[in-house]
Amino acid sequence: MPQLVLIRHGQSAWNLENRFTGWWDVNLTPLGEEEARQAGELLAARGFDFDLCFTSFQTRAIKTLNIALEAMGRLWLPVEKDWRLNERHYGGLTGLNKAETAAKHGEEQVRIWRRSFDIPPPAMAPGGDFDLTNDRRYAGIAIPTHESLKDTIARVLPCWEERIAPALKDGRRVLISAHGNSLRALVKHLSNIADDEIVALEIPTGQPIVYDLDEQLNAIERYFLKDR
Amino acid sequence: MPQLVLIRHGQSAWNLENRFTGWWDVNLTPLGEEEARQAGELLAARGFDFDLCFTSFQTRAIKTLNIALEAMGRLWLPVEKDWRLNERHYGGLTGLNKAETAAKHGEEQVRIWRRSFDIPPPAMAPGGDFDLTNDRRYAGIAIPTHESLKDTIARVLPCWEERIAPALKDGRRVLISAHGNSLRALVKHLSNIADDEIVALEIPTGQPIVYDLDEQLNAIERYFLKDR
Repeated sequence: MPQLVLIRHGQSAWNLENRFTGWWDVNLTPLGEEEARQAGELLAARGFDFDLCFTSFQTRAIKTLNIALEAMGRLWLPVEKDWRLNERHYGGLTGLNKAETAAKHGEEQVRIWRRSFDIPPPAMAPGGDFDLTNDRRYAGIAIPTHESLKDTIARVLPCWEERIAPALKDGRRVLISAHGNSLRALVKHLSNIADDEIVALEIPTGQPIVYDLDEQLNAIERYFLKDR
Repeated sequence: MPQLVLIRHGQSAWNLENRFTGWWDVNLTPLGEEEARQAGELLAARGFDFDLCFTSFQTRAIKTLNIALEAMGRLWLPVEKDWRLNERHYGGLTGLNKAETAAKHGEEQVRIWRRSFDIPPPAMAPGGDFDLTNDRRYAGIAIPTHESLKDTIARVLPCWEERIAPALKDGRRVLISAHGNSLRALVKHLSNIADDEIVALEIPTGQPIVYDLDEQLNAIERYFLKDR
């Protein structure tokens, strides 16, 4: 049976400050590192093992994976890093905390952005503090200026189809360390969740989510490992 | 000009205790982590950058790479892990410190093993504390029972020819984090060092070694980055 486990990165500095992070490359907090370690220890204690790992181009997801793998004694596993697993790009909201966003755009508008499947936040203005145009990590990639969840899904799923699904069909056990919205994209796809429901589905940091899949990669069951 | 940098992993727990380590998976000490961080900071400060990284299947080299990459803001770079970059397999000497080795085998024999290019240490007895037969990391690999430096070179060079040299010829800037003897293998090959000289060439921990190469990957110059 194909085996897939998802982990959202541990707490980041901007999770803690309640800022929109998106593609900005914020590090884990000490708690975030501890969450990653505990995720790895839980996976090992429950007898989970892997053949191939995927993560994004972002430090918080890569470090979560590295720390969890070390806790499992599996630092030597192959890891594919793919920008398509990055967090949703929050455009002009990047760097703002909840209060700043509400003050700037109004509570009602923020509610719409938070709850909407296909309405993106305002575009990021070029040349601002969080503009990644000159970050060589994204050379050759059309960096979004903002993304709705729908936009995020549209670039996550090709990564699933091209890289992850073939590995699973090939019998490899896969671990993915990624972000709230790139994981929502996968969960929506695998669990066939409606557009208006997926926006409200919270994916907690550092909690391994297990998918039992059939040979065609249809989800038989999805559960938090800590609950079993 | 193809650009290659080699780093031997930072100090490990058994470097500190002066034990033969070989394929046993010993972790970095805090000093070893600091060496890795400083290596990354030095590379960044001198304007070095990379497109592809290689490391072994061993925690101390992988962590050295991860720590150095994080210090460079390059944790997102692709990393290939290859068992052929592992340390020389010290066979039956694995786990012994200098005094234990001398007491067990005699000073003269130890000197021969240390200085010899093609005489391997005694084979590792199966079922001992350091037997890796059941380590799934090496599933499908003919784990050596012991290696001379010559043996080590014989499995490092195919990795160079198949994976590393093509990347360099393709214009990619390569960083390799590996071990004293797997790096000796590369240095012997690139700098055309005689058998009896390579055994005495010390490769210090955590010091980036830069190779300036021509288009055919002949070494123009080799130097410690800290000396420039």
